[in-house]
Amino acid sequence: MDDLDVRRLIDEIRSGALSSDDAAAALRKLPFAELGFAKVDHHRPLRQGIPEAVYAPGKTAEQCAAIVAELLSGGSGPVLLTRATEAQAQAAAAASPGAERLPAQPVENRLVTLSWRAARSRPGRVLVCSAGTADQPVVDECMITLRAYGFRPESLGDCGVAGVHRLLASYEDLLEADAVVVIAGMEGALASLVGGLTPAPVIAVPTSAGYGAALEGVTALLAMHASCAAGITVVGIDNGYGAASAVARTLRRATA
Amino acid sequence: MDDLDVRRLIDEIRSGALSSDDAAAALRKLPFAELGFAKVDHHRPLRQGIPEAVYAPGKTAEQCAAIVAELLSGGSGPVLLTRATEAQAQAAAAASPGAERLPAQPVENRLVTLSWRAARSRPGRVLVCSAGTADQPVVDECMITLRAYGFRPESLGDCGVAGVHRLLASYEDLLEADAVVVIAGMEGALASLVGGLTPAPVIAVPTSAGYGAALEGVTALLAMHASCAAGITVVGIDNGYGAASAVARTLRRATA
Amino acid sequence: MDDLDVRRLIDEIRSGALSSDDAAAALRKLPFAELGFAKVDHHRPLRQGIPEAVYAPGKTAEQCAAIVAELLSGGSGPVLLTRATEAQAQAAAAASPGAERLPAQPVENRLVTLSWRAARSRPGRVLVCSAGTADQPVVDECMITLRAYGFRPESLGDCGVAGVHRLLASYEDLLEADAVVVIAGMEGALASLVGGLTPAPVIAVPTSAGYGAALEGVTALLAMHASCAAGITVVGIDNGYGAASAVARTLRRATA
Amino acid sequence: MDDLDVRRLIDEIRSGALSSDDAAAALRKLPFAELGFAKVDHHRPLRQGIPEAVYAPGKTAEQCAAIVAELLSGGSGPVLLTRATEAQAQAAAAASPGAERLPAQPVENRLVTLSWRAARSRPGRVLVCSAGTADQPVVDECMITLRAYGFRPESLGDCGVAGVHRLLASYEDLLEADAVVVIAGMEGALASLVGGLTPAPVIAVPTSAGYGAALEGVTALLAMHASCAAGITVVGIDNGYGAASAVARTLRRATA
Amino acid sequence: MDDLDVRRLIDEIRSGALSSDDAAAALRKLPFAELGFAKVDHHRPLRQGIPEAVYAPGKTAEQCAAIVAELLSGGSGPVLLTRATEAQAQAAAAASPGAERLPAQPVENRLVTLSWRAARSRPGRVLVCSAGTADQPVVDECMITLRAYGFRPESLGDCGVAGVHRLLASYEDLLEADAVVVIAGMEGALASLVGGLTPAPVIAVPTSAGYGAALEGVTALLAMHASCAAGITVVGIDNGYGAASAVARTLRRATA
Amino acid sequence: MDDLDVRRLIDEIRSGALSSDDAAAALRKLPFAELGFAKVDHHRPLRQGIPEAVYAPGKTAEQCAAIVAELLSGGSGPVLLTRATEAQAQAAAAASPGAERLPAQPVENRLVTLSWRAARSRPGRVLVCSAGTADQPVVDECMITLRAYGFRPESLGDCGVAGVHRLLASYEDLLEADAVVVIAGMEGALASLVGGLTPAPVIAVPTSAGYGAALEGVTALLAMHASCAAGITVVGIDNGYGAASAVARTLRRATA
Amino acid sequence: MDDLDVRRLIDEIRSGALSSDDAAAALRKLPFAELGFAKVDHHRPLRQGIPEAVYAPGKTAEQCAAIVAELLSGGSGPVLLTRATEAQAQAAAAASPGAERLPAQPVENRLVTLSWRAARSRPGRVLVCSAGTADQPVVDECMITLRAYGFRPESLGDCGVAGVHRLLASYEDLLEADAVVVIAGMEGALASLVGGLTPAPVIAVPTSAGYGAALEGVTALLAMHASCAAGITVVGIDNGYGAASAVARTLRRATA
Amino acid sequence: MDDLDVRRLIDEIRSGALSSDDAAAALRKLPFAELGFAKVDHHRPLRQGIPEAVYAPGKTAEQCAAIVAELLSGGSGPVLLTRATEAQAQAAAAASPGAERLPAQPVENRLVTLSWRAARSRPGRVLVCSAGTADQPVVDECMITLRAYGFRPESLGDCGVAGVHRLLASYEDLLEADAVVVIAGMEGALASLVGGLTPAPVIAVPTSAGYGAALEGVTALLAMHASCAAGITVVGIDNGYGAASAVARTLRRATA
Repeated sequence: MDDLDVRRLIDEIRSGALSSDDAAAALRKLPFAELGFAKVDHHRPLRQGIPEAVYAPGKTAEQCAAIVAELLSGGSGPVLLTRATEAQAQAAAAASPGAERLPAQPVENRLVTLSWRAARSRPGRVLVCSAGTADQPVVDECMITLRAYGFRPESLGDCGVAGVHRLLASYEDLLEADAVVVIAGMEGALASLVGGLTPAPVIAVPTSAGYGAALEGVTALLAMHASCAAGITVVGIDNGYGAASAVARTLRRATA
Repeated sequence: MDDLDVRRLIDEIRSGALSSDDAAAALRKLPFAELGFAKVDHHRPLRQGIPEAVYAPGKTAEQCAAIVAELLSGGSGPVLLTRATEAQAQAAAAASPGAERLPAQPVENRLVTLSWRAARSRPGRVLVCSAGTADQPVVDECMITLRAYGFRPESLGDCGVAGVHRLLASYEDLLEADAVVVIAGMEGALASLVGGLTPAPVIAVPTSAGYGAALEGVTALLAMHASCAAGITVVGIDNGYGAASAVARTLRRATA
Repeated sequence: MDDLDVRRLIDEIRSGALSSDDAAAALRKLPFAELGFAKVDHHRPLRQGIPEAVYAPGKTAEQCAAIVAELLSGGSGPVLLTRATEAQAQAAAAASPGAERLPAQPVENRLVTLSWRAARSRPGRVLVCSAGTADQPVVDECMITLRAYGFRPESLGDCGVAGVHRLLASYEDLLEADAVVVIAGMEGALASLVGGLTPAPVIAVPTSAGYGAALEGVTALLAMHASCAAGITVVGIDNGYGAASAVARTLRRATA
Repeated sequence: MDDLDVRRLIDEIRSGALSSDDAAAALRKLPFAELGFAKVDHHRPLRQGIPEAVYAPGKTAEQCAAIVAELLSGGSGPVLLTRATEAQAQAAAAASPGAERLPAQPVENRLVTLSWRAARSRPGRVLVCSAGTADQPVVDECMITLRAYGFRPESLGDCGVAGVHRLLASYEDLLEADAVVVIAGMEGALASLVGGLTPAPVIAVPTSAGYGAALEGVTALLAMHASCAAGITVVGIDNGYGAASAVARTLRRATA
Repeated sequence: MDDLDVRRLIDEIRSGALSSDDAAAALRKLPFAELGFAKVDHHRPLRQGIPEAVYAPGKTAEQCAAIVAELLSGGSGPVLLTRATEAQAQAAAAASPGAERLPAQPVENRLVTLSWRAARSRPGRVLVCSAGTADQPVVDECMITLRAYGFRPESLGDCGVAGVHRLLASYEDLLEADAVVVIAGMEGALASLVGGLTPAPVIAVPTSAGYGAALEGVTALLAMHASCAAGITVVGIDNGYGAASAVARTLRRATA
Repeated sequence: MDDLDVRRLIDEIRSGALSSDDAAAALRKLPFAELGFAKVDHHRPLRQGIPEAVYAPGKTAEQCAAIVAELLSGGSGPVLLTRATEAQAQAAAAASPGAERLPAQPVENRLVTLSWRAARSRPGRVLVCSAGTADQPVVDECMITLRAYGFRPESLGDCGVAGVHRLLASYEDLLEADAVVVIAGMEGALASLVGGLTPAPVIAVPTSAGYGAALEGVTALLAMHASCAAGITVVGIDNGYGAASAVARTLRRATA
Repeated sequence: MDDLDVRRLIDEIRSGALSSDDAAAALRKLPFAELGFAKVDHHRPLRQGIPEAVYAPGKTAEQCAAIVAELLSGGSGPVLLTRATEAQAQAAAAASPGAERLPAQPVENRLVTLSWRAARSRPGRVLVCSAGTADQPVVDECMITLRAYGFRPESLGDCGVAGVHRLLASYEDLLEADAVVVIAGMEGALASLVGGLTPAPVIAVPTSAGYGAALEGVTALLAMHASCAAGITVVGIDNGYGAASAVARTLRRATA
Repeated sequence: MDDLDVRRLIDEIRSGALSSDDAAAALRKLPFAELGFAKVDHHRPLRQGIPEAVYAPGKTAEQCAAIVAELLSGGSGPVLLTRATEAQAQAAAAASPGAERLPAQPVENRLVTLSWRAARSRPGRVLVCSAGTADQPVVDECMITLRAYGFRPESLGDCGVAGVHRLLASYEDLLEADAVVVIAGMEGALASLVGGLTPAPVIAVPTSAGYGAALEGVTALLAMHASCAAGITVVGIDNGYGAASAVARTLRRATA
């Protein structure tokens, strides 16, 4: 409900088109319709290409397929299915053709992200740096979500200490980026390093990769927060979707 | 050291203006001078108004005063002294007049932030929302740092559940903001709420305010990370300086 | 053993119907029989419809079926089987027909709650709000337990930030409720929100839904406890049965 | 803003008493005024005696005194100052005479709770059981808050294992209570014990009393949540105010 | 109330010396009087020399002095005041002369344990081994409590790795001991070592001595529990009183 | 090496039967042979019936079977296989007939404890109380180990709050016991309760039974340590073997 | 890139062999090539036998095989595959014959380490002590990595408290060792003990062996850090590869 | 007791200079004297310059002074007093002149390390890198301990991300070092960075510097352990003394 709607409501009350009771009822609903929550849910997605995301865990393959199909039938924006098992992914892909999926091929015990109907292309150079192979599922979720938002992100994998030359070789890309996502598990030091190399917004994603003292991502999360590189921000453990959404918030003014 | 410097170095080597030994020495230093780290330290501050921040804990009042004075004498950008005791603050303010300080008047056991020589004004509407009085020290650190960067942030205090009408009354400011900082302790739910009300980048700062199950900020930090509002990012506990720096990264393209 | 029993015992002692030795033995047992514990176990269930609950984990399917059957043969009140695997559930249902089960159909890896012989209907409007699909197992356990106690609870699902309009649309139900159960994982902010919308008793159930920083429900538990909404109470992680029991305590005076 | 206000607004719009612009502005504010949050803040307190609570930590003695005085001048309901130092308490008491304070006399390093203008008497038998002397500050905060709500609670101190006979001697009071608050640190077993002795709602408050493995209340909080006594609910560590507010929610129907 | 009392009650009921109403009242109280709790509190202390222990934290010096004096006036067994500040200790010692105190002389910031009227001597060789000087406050609390129980314990200090020869030099004492208390902070390895050297019951007390990774005793507590030396038991962090009480339980049959 | 050996060595050195070099070598080995560790390993087991325990996890079924067989062939005392899978248990039982096993019949996913050649009967009344069915695996490990030591323990199951009358009905057994093992998960309050009912040594075993806030036994462990019942001792989570060994230490003087 | 390369580059620039553009490009890469990171990656391995390690988790069996094959084709130094499943191990071994593997035979659920082309023999006596069978996977990873580095380590298993005589029997080996790795789970006391017995560098590896209070290695890690034996260092939980690498750093001067 | 002593004892036994009883007594003591523990305590310090360290916390100023004086009178090696308050430091320095102290001048609330009689100079290039001013107390403890061992360490302060050029400018020192100590709080990333720059042994010391998510050093400790730079080892939080001792172990072969 936008300003226009509010003024029309006012006109209808004034003209008597709405009875007192109906007007009271309409006004009672105003607070909810006017609230940002509602706007986010119903209006902005259509206008700005914010994806509807379906979180697969706890749903049957049939439920996943049905919800995705419903969302696709009911709107025109992008739809995501995240953290799906192979069975959930195949059910949804079969019911609603045309999905991009990552990883493209099944990998044992790897969850899948699917995307339908990506938003139209948006400006903004987005770089997704990650530390190692074990972080790939989070990279996948982040990349596919960014593409659903309309970005054309570049990824730079395997930038951990053993491969930091790859990061440095992309030093100019880092300097020119509009936003950088850093995805790293273990001690998460890559975020500090990237933060020191670029003046761009840096969104760090701790991952549950690693074992033992990595504490399933808690160590990386704490370390990224205790980082001495100023101005780095952090999203939740393994939350590639959240990082992509933070990028969309950061670069929304860039949308022509 | 920029591209020009590199080409001049090449010319000097070629022309013989540099001996082999001197050239080797110059080249050996290249990596460090060329590195982003160094750039951040020496070049960008002068050009972009990034503050030099002195972290007071563990330093004597004399050391604080001396380091601030040295930084002020050696450059032209803003200088911050953060988390200073009253004694450290007064020593530094006496040695280097002209500081803004927050809180302006001494409050028992409250640490002080001081700022000298704020950067020239930058565009960007920044809103700093906080939940309660106990979060004020973090709000102060964030506000003064934002001003040091050249922003003119607005603050919106006491927006916790008991005062959420204040937040909602500023709903349009939230919608129009270029960046929103949310500062909250206890369960940190304010971040989720703000995230649902604005499409702007939201940077959440958990604070150590509260007691018991608040676990000195850990509960708020975890809760902000587990937030179901997509695209919120988080900085470290009580890190008002970090949040302000994240805003500066986010809005740096806005700098004309 | 009630007052009547005590007086009869006194009479039997006085009349000599009980020998000194038998009287001593009877008196020795008095403390235990008279204790509230015992009352709770043996007397109140029959009178007030408190369910006997069988906790399935660690028991064989045969044991589950046998214990349920025994409880049904030995009393007249409701009997619950909680956290049962599909195999345990089917064994118990086969041995003791007439159970309600949730979820009604098998869902992969989902535990099942079964209920036999629900108590007779009790007054009291109980609302069960939950944040997302992943919380459904806890909602199921809570709903079926509430029905076993004799309540006719209403449930309001999917009230997380993305669906808060559903919650607000039920604003009057919240105002009129006699008790509200809030079931939410991740950061558990729904409890704070509901606490601000209703004057009714609010019983919050943190769930282990979510991943990473949700720490298997610990984040939600801590956040609910640190909530700035006054007067919210919390039960254990995933403890839908406990929340329903707390509702029964809260509304017991409503039992005519 | 209640239904009457809404209808009056409708009338004013219809009659033209409000211009289109003013009507739009008024409607825009409706959502916030209509929200339960606001109701809680402004309306219910006046009608139902819900205390305005000022949380002292982080405020100067002068600020405490001023806020309390302002709240007392602006309404007619009870006002609380919680977790005040002796200095804060004395400043507020001097500025606003007539407060009840607990503890009545200064105790070294003990925080103080003050209450002004308690609500008129409400029905409901409330029992506050506590384990030991070290829990007394939380008992004080709970008792004074309950009295501010209009209850006349009874307290039963020193009911830990060493003094459990005191608890058992009050067994009938437990059976007859409308609500029981259990305040205990260390391992918090008192909550399980009370839960087994009474059918009333039991609200448990873990305290930070104890040392070592008590982990400043975290052990008691976890233990109360893991309690095998069904239907116990828990509030935050040391949160006597929260427990009293939960009682008020639980017994609000008892308000004539 | 012992068997004799029960039989007397039966006789009084039978003879009519008690009216029906009085008999009912007397019987109603039976459960509580008969319970072990009560026995522990009132009877056993007098017979077996179990100390009444006053836990000082949270009490004023006057309260400490008054409670100790009351306990001394009301019974004949030992009385302890534990974790007292110097002020609390001196107030209690002044009000009730004749106390043993540890440490005998004031040490800066060290809490004090006082004991009055130790029980008569009991058999049983008790050895208290400790790792370092920093564990001394816990050693003091344990030694003075053991003496209050009537034991004549021997202590063996400074047995950490650097002084393990002292432990080994007492190898025969370890072999012959009836009970060994091991008091150690940091990694608590002394408990494993002693457990391997003696077949006697070993009661380990983790202490909060140490810093950093010692986590205020939590590391020692966990390590002692994870110890690979079979049959070691552990009491709470810094709980010298608890360890002494465990010794008293272990050796109670040794009391002639 | 006992005193006899030492004196024979001295004699051989004195007589010259040992050369200086051989004597030096022999003496160099003395420390190790003389150490308590060795004594424990080789001598005491034979004399006192201390079981050799084989910890199954991480070993193949064949290794389990082989180690057990070797231990049985090499000594005369009891041998235990703990935490064995069904496959490990069957391999060991097949290779070394005559084992007692618990549970006697396979239960899905339940680990098995096996015992061969229990020690000859020892005096001492040992009571093993447990809270619920889920604690049974730990009860089994404790009972079978106690029998291997030569005890004839009695067990008292299902003594949680819901079944506390069973515990109270055994009140005299508790009073007369020489040692009591309390096995409980969740909040572990049973240990406090038993500690208040018996003067005997109480060894508490926290179990990983329960879910959510039970934190896999950590809550029970902490709560048992923070227990306000004096003199309770605790062993590691699920460590039924350790509790039995602690009983053996406690009652070793009872061995004729 | 070493000094020679830098001087040759200078010569090529000076001589004009490199155009200005090519020289600029070459110089731009200098920082990265000159950085220690790069040196570590590309040069030292060839000269010093540092293994290339492939971390198997998260990779398909095909990927493991392919990466190992590529590394073997591209260099001459050792190659490791760590934490491989049986399937991953067999795929890699089939594709690249000649591997050493540990454990040599498949053990149920045990991960495998494989090594190809060990470095040439290096001096240095390395002793690997471990506490129990459950630590064997970490011992295997450490031993095979040490051999890949060119060491010929000796291992001393089963040195826990029950087998400490084995450790003491190797006392002279401990005194003569150039480096000692101590691998232990549970309470990790073995590290303290070894630290007291040898003046050599001691590298402790906490393992996730054990259950309950062992907290999957966290207890051992903390305990090793809180150890009172001076100069012990610790690597991450289960990190046998890291311990071997630390040995290589420690003894690198020993390489002739 | 060294080999000579052992042979003399053998001779005395053989010659009859020792009676059988005395010989038995002497031999009984052998194990302890011969043990490595004892060697460490009494012999090696004299020969190798290992410091006797007195840990000040929990001791009175007088005790500190007395213990230091006694150690200085009884041997010829270095003596350290660590973590002393200003009062303890001055008492010890007054009683035993000639100490080196760090920091040389009192700094508010800073603990002091004192050293007497440093060992004679030892070879080995030791570099101590630290991240920031707040780490200085740990740097001081490490430097003074290294000098007590006879090293002449160099320190490189302020090497955090903001000052990493200082680290890189010392790149050749890092390459040539025999051992590097890295002292850093917050997220501890400096350890990873240094580990990538040097092939030398790297001993990392997490410090409690920082606030909030730094968790008093636990974050740095975990992050250093989860570091992806192979072969880094870690000592306990703030344990500068331990790091210096680890260096001494690492470089002991370098002692001529």
